[in-house]
Amino acid sequence: MSDAVSPLATPFPELPAIAGVTPRVARAGYKDWGRCDLTYVELSQGTAVAGVFTRNVCCSSEVELGRANVARGRARALVVNAGNSNAFTGYRGREAVEQIMTQVAANLGCAQEEVFVSSTGVIGVPLPKDKARAGIEAALAADECTWEEAARTIGTTDTFPKGASAKAQLGAVQVHFSAIIKGSGMIAPDMATMLGYVFTDAAVSPEFLQECLSAANRRTFSCITVDSDTSTSDTVLAFATGKAGNEPLTSFDSPGADAFAAALEDICRQLSHLVVKDGEGAQKFIAVAVSGAVSDESARKVGLAIANSPLVKTAIAGEDANWGRVVMAVGKAGQPADRDRLSIGFGGTWAARDGQPLADYDEAPVAAHLKGREISIEVDLGLGDGRATVWTCDLTHGYISINADYRS
Amino acid sequence: MSDAVSPLATPFPELPAIAGVTPRVARAGYKDWGRCDLTYVELSQGTAVAGVFTRNVCCSSEVELGRANVARGRARALVVNAGNSNAFTGYRGREAVEQIMTQVAANLGCAQEEVFVSSTGVIGVPLPKDKARAGIEAALAADECTWEEAARTIGTTDTFPKGASAKAQLGAVQVHFSAIIKGSGMIAPDMATMLGYVFTDAAVSPEFLQECLSAANRRTFSCITVDSDTSTSDTVLAFATGKAGNEPLTSFDSPGADAFAAALEDICRQLSHLVVKDGEGAQKFIAVAVSGAVSDESARKVGLAIANSPLVKTAIAGEDANWGRVVMAVGKAGQPADRDRLSIGFGGTWAARDGQPLADYDEAPVAAHLKGREISIEVDLGLGDGRATVWTCDLTHGYISINADYRS
Repeated sequence: MSDAVSPLATPFPELPAIAGVTPRVARAGYKDWGRCDLTYVELSQGTAVAGVFTRNVCCSSEVELGRANVARGRARALVVNAGNSNAFTGYRGREAVEQIMTQVAANLGCAQEEVFVSSTGVIGVPLPKDKARAGIEAALAADECTWEEAARTIGTTDTFPKGASAKAQLGAVQVHFSAIIKGSGMIAPDMATMLGYVFTDAAVSPEFLQECLSAANRRTFSCITVDSDTSTSDTVLAFATGKAGNEPLTSFDSPGADAFAAALEDICRQLSHLVVKDGEGAQKFIAVAVSGAVSDESARKVGLAIANSPLVKTAIAGEDANWGRVVMAVGKAGQPADRDRLSIGFGGTWAARDGQPLADYDEAPVAAHLKGREISIEVDLGLGDGRATVWTCDLTHGYISINADYRS
Repeated sequence: MSDAVSPLATPFPELPAIAGVTPRVARAGYKDWGRCDLTYVELSQGTAVAGVFTRNVCCSSEVELGRANVARGRARALVVNAGNSNAFTGYRGREAVEQIMTQVAANLGCAQEEVFVSSTGVIGVPLPKDKARAGIEAALAADECTWEEAARTIGTTDTFPKGASAKAQLGAVQVHFSAIIKGSGMIAPDMATMLGYVFTDAAVSPEFLQECLSAANRRTFSCITVDSDTSTSDTVLAFATGKAGNEPLTSFDSPGADAFAAALEDICRQLSHLVVKDGEGAQKFIAVAVSGAVSDESARKVGLAIANSPLVKTAIAGEDANWGRVVMAVGKAGQPADRDRLSIGFGGTWAARDGQPLADYDEAPVAAHLKGREISIEVDLGLGDGRATVWTCDLTHGYISINADYRS
């Protein structure tokens, strides 16, 4: 964890314990950090798992193996290594992951494929097997830790620990969700990544859990960006222990399935916002709301073009209502748009409508809005019913300092 | 023109006069600049024209009309307004462009469609018609100016005037090219754009001129990026007066056509590099050479993903041989790539080969290379014969200062 805390940081919330989930931390010593860097979460028998992973084709062995194992739908343990991403390390990196899976499976008496491993940190250095083995041993012998300790332990360049909770009423049974996430951007020469873990006591089939997680992902994690650079190790896993005792959910026809899916999406949105709020150099949290697109997916792509534009992000950093840069970003998005139907606003005040600056545009409320920490940009394409919201942060000197004023 | 000159600036070269081309400048007063801001170039009868334009769908009326008129293949005059891009100004903006075309056509006794107009500067403010009319009148009455004066006059946030020349031997006849360009990025709240103009005395049909310009564009202007933000007004026009008296070129079967196309591509490459060297905040000029791709176009897309990555650009700014960030950028490019065949080098020294860090990697020559002004990144995908080179600059505090430390 970095010393300088993001101005957008929020206190770590109270997270409920989840029946069947036991987190522990240990120190493997992957980096000279003087703090725990290995997180081990034991999951009760019968825990369902679902996951979404980076689409970066240069992904790590952790991602490759995790993607394969999620297809089996069951999990007994999660191991997260912080300080070494083990990416771009060839067969040696893969052997290190397999060693961890074997070691944990032998201890629990489960299949190797039920052990999920993530790693985050420097790339190009194979994860040291001896440190991993000793770290796992220490974790297996450790006492249960708090969610906040686990959230701190999975962090690298994060400036604050990040967690969220949710609950859903399934008929007579209330189910609970607790989740932790790490991610801030990347620092030279380390490649920090977004790793998120959601734990629930709900009983749910792996297939339906995956369906809900994938849908939530499209509207949450897939709608955030800090710097447009897709990590090699991004992973979000959802684990459901079933200990709440509800009638198992298997599809949207199951009673309570809508409430469950809504709670899962809610917790994913909370987590995704926390990552943006810890974006490298972030001073402002920006929501880009796009409406009037030809489809929701088209709206998302337009939103991402705006949220990834260095010129839009620097304008917000400069508290400048530069709607011309938003026009430029809409135009380059490669999506259907009509210059003469386009409207742009900030904080609920339109600056341009139907392709022209508003004659009676009052910049005072916009200027006041832009001085705040939470900024909204509204774009109406005027073409259809497609809508999406994308979240990002501003681009500041802090980002350059973190990533350039540094020599490995 | 800005006061602080780019450290990558080069002196304005000697450009030959081109028979049939007469540049003049005047002061329309679009901005409170105290310098000329309107460039007028008269072209002799029979001049062929070709052009490439921004693909931003929110383009200006200048671009819309220019694209339509290029299809007719003939030009008699070029007008460039600096200080106002006239983009996103609706019908009022279009009327201003049409007024300029009508005024010049009446003076020359030519068709309105033979008058090409570009504008660059603040967006969302219709170009003032009265200033444009008076500026044109002043330009028509002015003496011929130098190429350097014209290059300075089309500039906005550029820190140095940019020009290039080339020549080609077509049998017994030598033909000449002179060209000017402006572009640096964008500054709040103005939207600077890349505008380039190539003039040659060669005799060439409009269709073949367009074919050569489009091909050159794919390997030059389409292979540069400063900040990934596509302007609404980008325009490159090529004018051929035919005064050299060569046998007119109509296809690659014409004698000398290859030499002509090579010279045109050479001058386009020079111009494109000058824009990168004046990139906002640029301290280093970066060539990204991608080989081993499945096609040239795939190589170009991989090169652009690297050249647009904020993490790669900040690493170069920090003189950090961070090949892991290059791996990340390759992986997110959406192009065929195989992590285990990928090789990355800097300045001719491989840092990683076949998906793994080199055991005997000597960072000393790489570190020395990265201290220079001209940086090369080599990427071999190991898949096929596709190759491309993309040029960009580093991402520095200067970029943030220019674009954020400013309130309109």
